[in-house]
Amino acid sequence: MATRAVVFDLYGTVLRLEGLQDAAAVAGAADPAAFVATWRRKQLEYAFLSSLANAYRNFDELTGLALEHTCAQLGLRLDAIGKARLFEAASSLPAHADALPALQALQARNVPLAVLTNGVQASAQRAIANAGLGGLFSAVLSVETVRAYKPDPRVYGIATTHFDCAPLEIAFVSSNPWDAWGAAHFGFRVLWCNRTGAPPELLTPAPEVTMTSLAELPAHV
Amino acid sequence: MATRAVVFDLYGTVLRLEGLQDAAAVAGAADPAAFVATWRRKQLEYAFLSSLANAYRNFDELTGLALEHTCAQLGLRLDAIGKARLFEAASSLPAHADALPALQALQARNVPLAVLTNGVQASAQRAIANAGLGGLFSAVLSVETVRAYKPDPRVYGIATTHFDCAPLEIAFVSSNPWDAWGAAHFGFRVLWCNRTGAPPELLTPAPEVTMTSLAELPAHV
Repeated sequence: MATRAVVFDLYGTVLRLEGLQDAAAVAGAADPAAFVATWRRKQLEYAFLSSLANAYRNFDELTGLALEHTCAQLGLRLDAIGKARLFEAASSLPAHADALPALQALQARNVPLAVLTNGVQASAQRAIANAGLGGLFSAVLSVETVRAYKPDPRVYGIATTHFDCAPLEIAFVSSNPWDAWGAAHFGFRVLWCNRTGAPPELLTPAPEVTMTSLAELPAHV
Repeated sequence: MATRAVVFDLYGTVLRLEGLQDAAAVAGAADPAAFVATWRRKQLEYAFLSSLANAYRNFDELTGLALEHTCAQLGLRLDAIGKARLFEAASSLPAHADALPALQALQARNVPLAVLTNGVQASAQRAIANAGLGGLFSAVLSVETVRAYKPDPRVYGIATTHFDCAPLEIAFVSSNPWDAWGAAHFGFRVLWCNRTGAPPELLTPAPEVTMTSLAELPAHV
């Protein structure tokens, strides 16, 4: 089946979450890497829980609550300005070094590129522009329209509706193993970008392709 | 509104997950506490994800997959017998020291007591018996009947259906903050047993009562 579009997860896949560590260090986190990892884990937990309980709140709200909780858990006292700075840093993440070359290679072949994100549409647009990736994606699709989070199948369905195609006509790229699994379960052709050498998830089906970098992506599309 | 029943979460609330650390040490885990925490986190992640994606698999299966993943992630090589021993230890968890006195105090007042668990019904029954708590609960209710995991509201609805009552007539006890939140969102009267002094979750509504031990429970019912 021909590929109608390559759809990317945004946070972690295209944008570097580790880019938050400098801001966490400036804010006074004793272990900036652990702080960012804890914040991210709580953000995802809140997304999963609010979706499971039919209690959707948007990703910016959940990111802010997760930041509050992480500060309390790790004993980092931050005033409102400190929190606002960290939150702002989360909307100005750098792109992974392997993202722009891969996106440009695909764009040169006229493959439609899109983003499908748990994030708020406007925030995702801004993050993409801030990372120097403006104009590369023909669409930035957000869960906001279905008020649920990945891996809810309704979220992946946003992409098939948008491109008016079957799931297998979408090549979906994510570095988040739970997202790669959810997308494969929905029926996308999934390329898991496993930059960190994580062990594969054991839920099935597995992604079709595992890459160590987006540099490998053009060869698979 | 009068309390029709006190319903308990099982794993973590009544049973001590930390009881697995000895078995993890025997199995060769370099940091048994970290091993058990990682296993538990992956078990819950798999439960949330499979529920979100409408891809239910029972808790014993997910616990086994989470064990495999944790061994791979933390570099613990275990043969089938080693894995079976760890899995078996997970079905023979000790009760928290504060559980039996609190349950007996409530039982003496003829308050109906039940368990509502993400676990497999037969496994939960066995774990309760192994922990010396047989005969204390009038019902052991499992998510198996709805094929979804907490905090899906359908799970909490199993209890209101069983006791044929309104959510506010159930006093629900959990040490898991995400479960306490989900139960409060469903409408139960929630007593969060926060033994570890964790910061409160910031999703709303908050539990009505926060206790540091189940010893405080009888005074609140």
